[in-house]
Amino acid sequence: MARINDHYQKLSAGYLFPEIGRRVQAYTQSHPEADVIRLGIGDVTRPLPPAVIDAFHAGVDELASVDTFKGYGPEQGHLFLRELIAENDYASRGIRIDPAEIFVSDGAKCDCGNIQEIFSPECKVAVADPVYPVYIDTNVMAGRSGAADDKGRYEGIVYMPCTEENGFQPDIPSEPVDLVYLCSPNNPTGTVATHGQLKAWVDYARDSGAVLLFDAAYEAYITDPELPRSIYEVEGAREVAIEFRSFSKTAGFTGTRCAFIVVPEELKGKNSSGEDVSIHQLWSRRHSTKFNGTSYPVQCAAAAVYTPEGKAQVQGLIEFYMENARIIREGLLESGYTVFGGVHSPYSWLRVPGGMESWEFFDHLLEKTQIVGTPGSGFGPAGEGYFRLSAFGERDRIEEAIGRISGNLPAE
Amino acid sequence: MARINDHYQKLSAGYLFPEIGRRVQAYTQSHPEADVIRLGIGDVTRPLPPAVIDAFHAGVDELASVDTFKGYGPEQGHLFLRELIAENDYASRGIRIDPAEIFVSDGAKCDCGNIQEIFSPECKVAVADPVYPVYIDTNVMAGRSGAADDKGRYEGIVYMPCTEENGFQPDIPSEPVDLVYLCSPNNPTGTVATHGQLKAWVDYARDSGAVLLFDAAYEAYITDPELPRSIYEVEGAREVAIEFRSFSKTAGFTGTRCAFIVVPEELKGKNSSGEDVSIHQLWSRRHSTKFNGTSYPVQCAAAAVYTPEGKAQVQGLIEFYMENARIIREGLLESGYTVFGGVHSPYSWLRVPGGMESWEFFDHLLEKTQIVGTPGSGFGPAGEGYFRLSAFGERDRIEEAIGRISGNLPAE
Repeated sequence: MARINDHYQKLSAGYLFPEIGRRVQAYTQSHPEADVIRLGIGDVTRPLPPAVIDAFHAGVDELASVDTFKGYGPEQGHLFLRELIAENDYASRGIRIDPAEIFVSDGAKCDCGNIQEIFSPECKVAVADPVYPVYIDTNVMAGRSGAADDKGRYEGIVYMPCTEENGFQPDIPSEPVDLVYLCSPNNPTGTVATHGQLKAWVDYARDSGAVLLFDAAYEAYITDPELPRSIYEVEGAREVAIEFRSFSKTAGFTGTRCAFIVVPEELKGKNSSGEDVSIHQLWSRRHSTKFNGTSYPVQCAAAAVYTPEGKAQVQGLIEFYMENARIIREGLLESGYTVFGGVHSPYSWLRVPGGMESWEFFDHLLEKTQIVGTPGSGFGPAGEGYFRLSAFGERDRIEEAIGRISGNLPAE
Repeated sequence: MARINDHYQKLSAGYLFPEIGRRVQAYTQSHPEADVIRLGIGDVTRPLPPAVIDAFHAGVDELASVDTFKGYGPEQGHLFLRELIAENDYASRGIRIDPAEIFVSDGAKCDCGNIQEIFSPECKVAVADPVYPVYIDTNVMAGRSGAADDKGRYEGIVYMPCTEENGFQPDIPSEPVDLVYLCSPNNPTGTVATHGQLKAWVDYARDSGAVLLFDAAYEAYITDPELPRSIYEVEGAREVAIEFRSFSKTAGFTGTRCAFIVVPEELKGKNSSGEDVSIHQLWSRRHSTKFNGTSYPVQCAAAAVYTPEGKAQVQGLIEFYMENARIIREGLLESGYTVFGGVHSPYSWLRVPGGMESWEFFDHLLEKTQIVGTPGSGFGPAGEGYFRLSAFGERDRIEEAIGRISGNLPAE
């Protein structure tokens, strides 16, 4: 009799975004005339840049002719793309990353979800609260937790609350942990870590032997050149950190699918005999055994992000969304909301007004203004009382949305 | 201190195809003038069909305009593609599969590798020998085996030898097993299961509670309309089987990346309390938590496979490769080789002549004829003494290859 993986039954019933979808669908069915504006899910809305489109078409054309046809590529990604990443995302900022340390994939969600496989089920996992749910759910599935309590916190997972008091930057845990998920610029709070804050984590990891899993999917939104865009800007990070990057939020690839991770050669874990084992080699084995490479034309499209035209066009996309973020942030501040993030991130994180809970405010906003946001509590108990608004969207819709929300500040 | 997943250290050092690549590279470096013909890895060589290319371009164009831009799609795949699959791959053969039971992905290697996650680490796994290595390696990684013996067989895995004696169709194991990987048309042996043989497996699974993991990636190569193309052609299979399909070998998508699996609603496993749990729901949770959908233009390209032009062009591709397979099979038979497969499959499986071992014959063929094939022992100990030749390639190269091999039959 085939037994199932019992750990799946510990998962709370619904992933956040399907629940939002369900409520919005129920509302629009009973209000078919409603002009709903969706600032909930963090999905881009602007078309792919022209340079990317041209390279995408050219990649497809190569598949149309026997002389240029591409079958299986290297599981790790084509070298032309890995070289461009190493040069433009790292060397240009003085960071030494070899193309052999880069693994191209079809998405950061997959990478963030799969990375835990190469570690022991015994590893103690630390995550921020609030947090991107994939970090937790994939560890629950792998058996690194007990059951969830009534607030949705899983036994055995170490939660690092991110609140107004600590500027939404997690404090180093007081108990020993092995794997630490960090995300900067942060989803959902929109805040960003300084070099000093990242250095504290690198120092901690070097002292304790923990591995940092650093999600930099939103690095392109950092507007201050002094702020770190990569964990590897911190000295010593190569020995302790894996970095996750994505073309999704940078270049509009959410429907196109391309991302990569960096696993430095120096990074080691311990086997049960206490010997050092190369994490790079483990990930290489995982990636080549369970993945067959990213679609060739998609890799061509991603490579175009690094051309002069591509860079300029991507920068234009980022600036477009960041102007949206400014409109959201300043509009809400002006009308009396308390707002965090939205400066180096497309996400604004607002304190729910009127003493409401997050889901209560979700329903209120949907009913009164037909705006869809994301309840902070959906990202963890410490997100209760907060609400995420995303800057992805067309300009007139963002302006319309902020007008509606500003006129509907609930009384305290 | 971050502990690694120790099970990875049980894996034998090299995956088969990198080792082939290493030997071929060494040969070509020392023989730079050699005209090497590669019939080793099972990778297609013909360009994508024109209908697929057109749809691929059209999908890319949709991403170029704000009105038609596509961001995140459903993790499970766009409904337009799942409906086409249900209608054309299943309903057309009298099989009832709902589009909700289909999960589109970026490759059958990923699906075959990931499926084991939703089952208990305690599950006993049965695989054919020889076999596609991904089935085994991913279970070793998940801890469903002990160490490998000197022949590469992992303790705890049940191997079902496929030999000339049983027509390369595995016998039902005598000991209890929970998960059975089946592949028809078979990689590597090129043989195909009859309806009766599949029915025996379905009956066995229904009696024992085992789950069948049926890999039908090569179903399009079946030339006899009476032979089953899907496990669901057998009555009762919906309660016991998951099916894996791919556009890779059918429509030339090895570099484009699209596949799907079918998980029927009726399929159940047991949790540790002995209760029935929906396997469909477990897979849905896994797929939506660790995957973010297949690239939109790729799904458009895959949908074009089901248009009248697409169907005709794909059929042309299959016939092209199957003519190659005929040339290989008949050429080798005429020159005195013993050959299996190659009739309902692009793979021919030949008995190594001259009392050589598989890798010895690999080196012999490379040295004497500059032909690259795949040593049978690379697929498992029962593959020792056999050799796989793939029918993917251009016609003149296949003819040249067979001419060379035929003139080099080693003496018995």
